[in-house]
Amino acid sequence: MPTNRCIVKARPEKGGLEFEERDIPEPGFGEVLIKNRAAAVCGTDLHIYNWDAWSQGRVKLPCILGHEFGGEVVDIGPGVKHIKVGDFVSGEGHLTCGFCRNCRLGDGHVCEDWKGIGYDTDGCFREYMTHPEMNTVINDPDLDPAFAAIQDPLGNAIHTVFAADCVATKVAVFGLGPVGALAVAVLRAIGAAQIFAVGRRNQYRIDLARQLGAHHAFGSVDTNPVEYIMDHTNGKGVDVVLEISGNPHAVQDGLHSLRMGGDIVLIGTSNEPSTINLAKDVVFRSIHMHGVTGRRLWHTWDKMKGLLASGRLNVDPVITHRFPFADYEKSFELMNTGNCGKVVLEF
Amino acid sequence: MPTNRCIVKARPEKGGLEFEERDIPEPGFGEVLIKNRAAAVCGTDLHIYNWDAWSQGRVKLPCILGHEFGGEVVDIGPGVKHIKVGDFVSGEGHLTCGFCRNCRLGDGHVCEDWKGIGYDTDGCFREYMTHPEMNTVINDPDLDPAFAAIQDPLGNAIHTVFAADCVATKVAVFGLGPVGALAVAVLRAIGAAQIFAVGRRNQYRIDLARQLGAHHAFGSVDTNPVEYIMDHTNGKGVDVVLEISGNPHAVQDGLHSLRMGGDIVLIGTSNEPSTINLAKDVVFRSIHMHGVTGRRLWHTWDKMKGLLASGRLNVDPVITHRFPFADYEKSFELMNTGNCGKVVLEF
Amino acid sequence: MPTNRCIVKARPEKGGLEFEERDIPEPGFGEVLIKNRAAAVCGTDLHIYNWDAWSQGRVKLPCILGHEFGGEVVDIGPGVKHIKVGDFVSGEGHLTCGFCRNCRLGDGHVCEDWKGIGYDTDGCFREYMTHPEMNTVINDPDLDPAFAAIQDPLGNAIHTVFAADCVATKVAVFGLGPVGALAVAVLRAIGAAQIFAVGRRNQYRIDLARQLGAHHAFGSVDTNPVEYIMDHTNGKGVDVVLEISGNPHAVQDGLHSLRMGGDIVLIGTSNEPSTINLAKDVVFRSIHMHGVTGRRLWHTWDKMKGLLASGRLNVDPVITHRFPFADYEKSFELMNTGNCGKVVLEF
Amino acid sequence: MPTNRCIVKARPEKGGLEFEERDIPEPGFGEVLIKNRAAAVCGTDLHIYNWDAWSQGRVKLPCILGHEFGGEVVDIGPGVKHIKVGDFVSGEGHLTCGFCRNCRLGDGHVCEDWKGIGYDTDGCFREYMTHPEMNTVINDPDLDPAFAAIQDPLGNAIHTVFAADCVATKVAVFGLGPVGALAVAVLRAIGAAQIFAVGRRNQYRIDLARQLGAHHAFGSVDTNPVEYIMDHTNGKGVDVVLEISGNPHAVQDGLHSLRMGGDIVLIGTSNEPSTINLAKDVVFRSIHMHGVTGRRLWHTWDKMKGLLASGRLNVDPVITHRFPFADYEKSFELMNTGNCGKVVLEF
Repeated sequence: MPTNRCIVKARPEKGGLEFEERDIPEPGFGEVLIKNRAAAVCGTDLHIYNWDAWSQGRVKLPCILGHEFGGEVVDIGPGVKHIKVGDFVSGEGHLTCGFCRNCRLGDGHVCEDWKGIGYDTDGCFREYMTHPEMNTVINDPDLDPAFAAIQDPLGNAIHTVFAADCVATKVAVFGLGPVGALAVAVLRAIGAAQIFAVGRRNQYRIDLARQLGAHHAFGSVDTNPVEYIMDHTNGKGVDVVLEISGNPHAVQDGLHSLRMGGDIVLIGTSNEPSTINLAKDVVFRSIHMHGVTGRRLWHTWDKMKGLLASGRLNVDPVITHRFPFADYEKSFELMNTGNCGKVVLEF
Repeated sequence: MPTNRCIVKARPEKGGLEFEERDIPEPGFGEVLIKNRAAAVCGTDLHIYNWDAWSQGRVKLPCILGHEFGGEVVDIGPGVKHIKVGDFVSGEGHLTCGFCRNCRLGDGHVCEDWKGIGYDTDGCFREYMTHPEMNTVINDPDLDPAFAAIQDPLGNAIHTVFAADCVATKVAVFGLGPVGALAVAVLRAIGAAQIFAVGRRNQYRIDLARQLGAHHAFGSVDTNPVEYIMDHTNGKGVDVVLEISGNPHAVQDGLHSLRMGGDIVLIGTSNEPSTINLAKDVVFRSIHMHGVTGRRLWHTWDKMKGLLASGRLNVDPVITHRFPFADYEKSFELMNTGNCGKVVLEF
Repeated sequence: MPTNRCIVKARPEKGGLEFEERDIPEPGFGEVLIKNRAAAVCGTDLHIYNWDAWSQGRVKLPCILGHEFGGEVVDIGPGVKHIKVGDFVSGEGHLTCGFCRNCRLGDGHVCEDWKGIGYDTDGCFREYMTHPEMNTVINDPDLDPAFAAIQDPLGNAIHTVFAADCVATKVAVFGLGPVGALAVAVLRAIGAAQIFAVGRRNQYRIDLARQLGAHHAFGSVDTNPVEYIMDHTNGKGVDVVLEISGNPHAVQDGLHSLRMGGDIVLIGTSNEPSTINLAKDVVFRSIHMHGVTGRRLWHTWDKMKGLLASGRLNVDPVITHRFPFADYEKSFELMNTGNCGKVVLEF
Repeated sequence: MPTNRCIVKARPEKGGLEFEERDIPEPGFGEVLIKNRAAAVCGTDLHIYNWDAWSQGRVKLPCILGHEFGGEVVDIGPGVKHIKVGDFVSGEGHLTCGFCRNCRLGDGHVCEDWKGIGYDTDGCFREYMTHPEMNTVINDPDLDPAFAAIQDPLGNAIHTVFAADCVATKVAVFGLGPVGALAVAVLRAIGAAQIFAVGRRNQYRIDLARQLGAHHAFGSVDTNPVEYIMDHTNGKGVDVVLEISGNPHAVQDGLHSLRMGGDIVLIGTSNEPSTINLAKDVVFRSIHMHGVTGRRLWHTWDKMKGLLASGRLNVDPVITHRFPFADYEKSFELMNTGNCGKVVLEF
């Protein structure tokens, strides 16, 4: 009889994980049972591992962590119509109501009543999990399970890039963590005219951005991004800024790097409020600011499937480390050092 | 021989106007000569009249004021091809280069090198003026010249309304000055589902908004706008906020009145920077903020022509006062009291 | 114990209806039980009544007819989360899979596997019916049940109008049956600049279109529509044509009534293929043709809710007849004469 | 003193060209004088060379041919403000009025009063030509003059591709002449999910399409395109069809290759009308058909500049032949054989 090993956040402290063995769940009405092949570790998992203020306010223990996964369907519950045993699937970790105005209009990322697996409910860091059919996507059977598992952050990157018109335009990416790196890869795949990748001081990540196709990559500690971008755009600025850093200064720098009429997309978050001169920097310059969270359901997943099929999206270098599932502690420790891209657990 | 009386800002002080008689200008290459029939007084003219900090930094004296007008073409210069003597015209007061990327892409409101008549160059508060054919629009011959003259602020309102999807949606307008009042009229003309008109304490303007078709109209001094709007939208908020007040608190109230995924359009300006909790109020709620300035060239004018033709746009109540051209001092004094809508000078 | 009277197409012939009494169904998983208060008769019902070629090929007998309804929820099945007993509801008659690419992207009107109630499955011409929660919409409790029932054809009209940019633009509607009349009302509500309503010879319907706000209304038998439209648009044509007639000549006339770069929306259908000079009438003139079917799920319903709330949508004159439910034969006979707008059965 | 050699269509017959030497023109108001470095031969030039029915009806002789060019500005006329001597430029060959509604709204490709250089007025097959500043674009100084010269057909391809959403979607291109080949290159540059390149029997062009990045390339003489496309899209069809062949059957095949709700873009033209079953193939399947002509002014040129800058657009293989300017007869003869891509004349 198969096991169902799980990574459980058991204790309200830094670390505090247990590697437990549980029963394999039964799929309920409209649910599928998935045997995971790979799961990726998100910054959110790290927040919970480190038991920061956000985690303490949101997560009820015990809780199985994880929300990025790829696996095989091994059973289906009653009412399941579209997915069958043997399908290789991933899933959207935001469980949405499907009925509210936003869900119905294709904006499930702002569902009025969503829950996230891995923190609001048990997540995917386990061998067997159930998941609603309606939240499940069927992958190409040939897709590397690690790629399948990182579709959550790749989807963040795609949502961010597609929130403004980046095709054949000049774009600056502020913040070169995994989502920023993936955004560079996506921009490259859709023919951005000029890609400026702006990190801070981490040379490894700056080099990764260049490898992924950025035309310019540098750290803001060494190079003033506004001056650099203006120098390389005839003093006019870029069409689009993607703010993925959460650095409080980056919103300012981003606004000052934009051409008149440009767009800034915000997905990075900071704990502090920002001070913005709206009249000077937004109104008179006719700037558009777009808040982005999660993945558009299902526009983002549809574009993701297309980009993966195109042969033009180079995400391979972003997955820097792969560990066996049981070595999860190593992955959290590595991520705490910052010397990595995406870290994947393999079952 | 006809006169060419002009209202000239002659002296760097409050008031400081002269009523001068000048020669009738000759239209140059690509220019038309217009005999004005009506001109409207803008808040910008009032700033210059009052000689505030902005005026002192921007306007070179002497300068003929005014940029909102309707008149008849009485002569054309060489190279004019599309406008003929006898046409009843108005014009865009922002003179744009026509060649920069933004101009070429239909975004002349963010031309990289625009100048405004009435402050960067001589304006329309004169009997005869020249104007570039390319900046001139032909009005319906039956249009009231006063209506023709207020197309500049009506265009601001239309640009603001059309910057988000307001058709059949719930919209809150913050700020009920002339542009805010005109925005209410435009929203009514295009079938907004629910119009919340939020003034401050000026009951006259709140009543005007209700007369123009707002479903709800009130002052923020008496009624908390966020609570009121939430109470009347099942706690979900409006789809769109139009911030036309320039009140530093209104951006906050506007953001807190929006549904998840909503749009806030900013045309009001404040001298002070704003403090915004971007993570909480913009990113996680997937809000879009749009800075708006001027009129889109020529999308806004095209929609304006259509709305005026529709028979559904009720702007008549917004024009509260009409003075003979020579009584211009009265119009400035009246506007300084705030007890008016649009004030029009008739020639 | 309450009855459940139903209108059943029982026999494969013209008419062939039975007024049967059946058991009240139990709502299944995710279903609600609705007690209908009004149902409207669609042209599709008439096709089935008349047992035309399309009906013979599609409908399996016996079948309860009808797909336009408004009623009260009197019970809910397991798994229902968002609708409660007492809600006044209508519903989308196209049952969609919710999982295919088109459904997921907000284009359920082109679901790859949809079924229609009232012809593919039992419909709404009965006192009590079950319906999937996910296909149900909650109406304003004060909405006239007859209005609630005609949201299906009103939705067709809204889908058609919103398939091109009709706000503040010039639009010609070809075909003045119920959907055409409703399209005129919608165009009026959203501020179309000029509405040309083109019927054929039925003066009653031409007058109805004028009453609903068309700026011009005439029959093509008396007035050449292309000449008339060109005469009233400076020889340039309208921005948008809505082809709702299914008349084989109307597509030609519509194309020839358009300005360069305009849009023609096609919802009317003909049994015959059309001959179109694509090079001359579409390519060189950069025309866009949009096929429209059903209602966009759920964009159309969202706009419909907003328009009904706005107070600007005048659909009252379109409902020309109301019959008690048991008098259904009269409604079919009346519709066969063509001397009516929408016909509603009241329970 | 420099010469100004010109290729003049002098006689109303096949061929009928003269190689004349003329005076160098003076730039007029708002015009620049360009010394050409490369010019490309269009199918339109070939029509005029062969003196077909269209040419006989449109072109007044004598006429200097050509409208695809890249050259250096050597003088400027009065009123020129944005272009200076030494700029390396190309230009839009459609001279538009700049004032009509379509021009003003960024749709100059459907200007109500446009003229084409090289057939309505003298063209670019000459060493020195004048051109309106407003119709001139400044190239990157490092751009190969041959690339500069083919921006007209590249612009056709870009206009076609951007008329529907081709980013990360499945697209079929029908017709593999120069514009079709360029469309494949553009689709590849912007990350189309799957590119089906459908030629007829010319294996050279099929191979070229494959070289440019088509995932599938074949001839319709050997392979049924509808069957092939359905077999490779799970029986659902492509999202977008680009019809660039002008083959009367391709519109049918294109419509039958589309998924429900898809888009077909038409730029190919046929002399014969098409028969289309609108109800079955367009209305019930909610298909959008887009006629495309010329280049959007200036959206297309803006995207073109961005794609050329991106480093992702591989157009090099499309330029198959380069001749010295004086060898123009060879280029026409070669093009009449069909065994070529774009043919460029170098000065």
